[in-house]
Amino acid sequence: MVQPLEITIERSVNKKEKPPEDQLGFGTYFTDHMFIMDYAIEKGWHQPRIVPYQPILLDPAAKVFHYGQTIFEGLKAYLTDDGRTLLFRPQKNLQRLNRSNERLSIPEIDEALVLDALKQLIAVDQDWIPTEAGTSLYIRPFVFATQPALGVSPSTHYQFMIIMSPVGAYYPEGVNPVKIFVESEYVRTVIGGVGEAKTAGNYAAGLKAQEIAKEQGYSQVLWLDGIHRKYIEEVGSMNVFFKIKGTVYTPSLNGSILDGITRNSIIHLLKHWNIPVVEQILSIEELYEAGKAGFLEEAFGTGTAAVISPIGELSWCDEKLVINQGQTGDLSQRLYDTLSGIQRGTISDPFDWMLEVEGSAPVAVSSKNSNL
Amino acid sequence: MVQPLEITIERSVNKKEKPPEDQLGFGTYFTDHMFIMDYAIEKGWHQPRIVPYQPILLDPAAKVFHYGQTIFEGLKAYLTDDGRTLLFRPQKNLQRLNRSNERLSIPEIDEALVLDALKQLIAVDQDWIPTEAGTSLYIRPFVFATQPALGVSPSTHYQFMIIMSPVGAYYPEGVNPVKIFVESEYVRTVIGGVGEAKTAGNYAAGLKAQEIAKEQGYSQVLWLDGIHRKYIEEVGSMNVFFKIKGTVYTPSLNGSILDGITRNSIIHLLKHWNIPVVEQILSIEELYEAGKAGFLEEAFGTGTAAVISPIGELSWCDEKLVINQGQTGDLSQRLYDTLSGIQRGTISDPFDWMLEVEGSAPVAVSSKNSNL
Ligand SMILES: Cc1ncc(COP(=O)(O)O)c(C=O)c1O
Ligand SMILES: Cc1ncc(COP(=O)(O)O)c(C=O)c1O
Repeated sequence: MVQPLEITIERSVNKKEKPPEDQLGFGTYFTDHMFIMDYAIEKGWHQPRIVPYQPILLDPAAKVFHYGQTIFEGLKAYLTDDGRTLLFRPQKNLQRLNRSNERLSIPEIDEALVLDALKQLIAVDQDWIPTEAGTSLYIRPFVFATQPALGVSPSTHYQFMIIMSPVGAYYPEGVNPVKIFVESEYVRTVIGGVGEAKTAGNYAAGLKAQEIAKEQGYSQVLWLDGIHRKYIEEVGSMNVFFKIKGTVYTPSLNGSILDGITRNSIIHLLKHWNIPVVEQILSIEELYEAGKAGFLEEAFGTGTAAVISPIGELSWCDEKLVINQGQTGDLSQRLYDTLSGIQRGTISDPFDWMLEVEGSAPVAVSSKNSNL
Repeated sequence: MVQPLEITIERSVNKKEKPPEDQLGFGTYFTDHMFIMDYAIEKGWHQPRIVPYQPILLDPAAKVFHYGQTIFEGLKAYLTDDGRTLLFRPQKNLQRLNRSNERLSIPEIDEALVLDALKQLIAVDQDWIPTEAGTSLYIRPFVFATQPALGVSPSTHYQFMIIMSPVGAYYPEGVNPVKIFVESEYVRTVIGGVGEAKTAGNYAAGLKAQEIAKEQGYSQVLWLDGIHRKYIEEVGSMNVFFKIKGTVYTPSLNGSILDGITRNSIIHLLKHWNIPVVEQILSIEELYEAGKAGFLEEAFGTGTAAVISPIGELSWCDEKLVINQGQTGDLSQRLYDTLSGIQRGTISDPFDWMLEVEGSAPVAVSSKNSNL
């Protein structure tokens, strides 16, 4: 049997100053340590290690710069009032990591090892988990191709890393609906492409449409399918749900949509509450018709960053559709309260979603105090 | 008026050993120097410099790793028999570089400055241009996002680099037809996406299909359009042409196809020769019908790496189509000979395509000699 790899730890000697918790924003500050592991075609994944957060040295010919062979994940650790550290369904992220790897011809990673690395890294940087209401520690695992060679083919060498960033409350003043631009010109991806994978190119492809929408006062774009420009796919980097005449609809996983973990959890919760929820193909025309007939009761995006992001207004081909008078709907609010309550340990966890990072509580308490 | 930026040069003290010219391959060896220039939102592009080829230091949160905001170009320098160094239509590459930048929300780069940088870099590494028949110096300009921030939005900071690699003869034993797999499941891109841009994600998206085709004995895939899976787009990283009953057809630039510089030059040459050439939408059914009726005379891919790559056989939904008995066609050969002759300065250049890197000849001669 293959011996499990041992994770070595090199502790930082120069700890960074922690940023003020009301100025964290998203993904701009990083903790004192990071996890790193290498892959070479002749050795497989090797040398898993926690080291001080530091720049990486790469050959300018490394394939990631040229051919974008890279994937990532995003999840959060939450600190509970009683000092426990909880992760939300991390196994799901690791499974998706490997599905993305598969699609991008990147070698599979041992999920148990990565989960272990994640826990150890969090324990080492425990004092970086912010404590203010709504804050959390965002965790970014990612893999990229390092072989310095310009032939277009899968790399023989990779690095896998985990970096972490304390992030601010998404809604410092309560859940807030956004205006969304329905994008008819640009598309994010198409069936047969890599839309199902969490890979860099999908996000690069979305930047321009997003910039244009921002300039016009919208916070995000709603992506339509790349074939008919008709069927609803996602909203920015979120999955999307609509409540129409009491039933909740979300686009089915057709191959070009990301299988969001928040999406999956929302579907679970709705079923648990006996609220009808349907995964199906959904056209923007139908949605507008339902809206104009007064049947569209709520709309919201779902994702790790915001949990729930209510949509107060859509704009499609110059036609605006106001949803629930631009207010957060009751179901959106209930889903937000429930899911974020489960994540933060303030309400019970009926599905066993939360994974406690064990042995971290004492560290948490002491280093938090030392930071006061 | 803004002063043009001055390019500084730091010469390498430890010159690398040159690889044997019959073992160059493609993009695996790199020259002694590279060009680099930085962008910061508050300063614009600044500090253009030629420095020894070296690894780059990047924050692991740099946006290129996560959101793939990066573009590149590819062109070649050729050494003529009389010791001159020629570039093939480099201005076209720089224009395309900026079109790619525009699509990826990357700030525009001064094309005149880059051309100057390119010439100076080649002059500094002149002794790296290989001399054997068919060899050349491959030049890879590229831009990538460096801002260490995980929000999905255009970066505030970038680096632009040029690296160079001596590359072997593409056809050491004469032009050679390849077998191509017509891909019906995976797609490279779709209209509304970034297929027109030379950006990393397009290549990442193609890796898996390419791997599967290779395993089955094909050298590349032919991409069909992402909407109908019916219309021919490109072959691997090449544009594609078909000669049917004396007329040459190539897919029109519909927004999801790269505007290849070789493609453009082939169209010019054909027109110059009064051979009918048509840019139009072209379905794989039509092509197969023409082939089965005996009207498909030649097929070939075009690109900087191979110039012309004749297609000897297609396989689409298990149906094989042999073209020109699997042999290189007369027109393919004539196009190859003419274009590569113009590029290498052995035949006249009626369109003024070649740009000489001035002042480099003496360096070339002396350092070549010193390498003998
Ligand atoms: C494109 C895209 N869709 C949807 C989501 C939502 O997925 P999750 O709920 O797993 O965060 C994300 C990531 O957050 C995403 O990047
Ligand atoms: C996708 C793709 N198509 C076509 C080409 C051919 O373009 P060019 O003739 O400019 O090399 C390339 C690049 O070489 C490419 O990457």
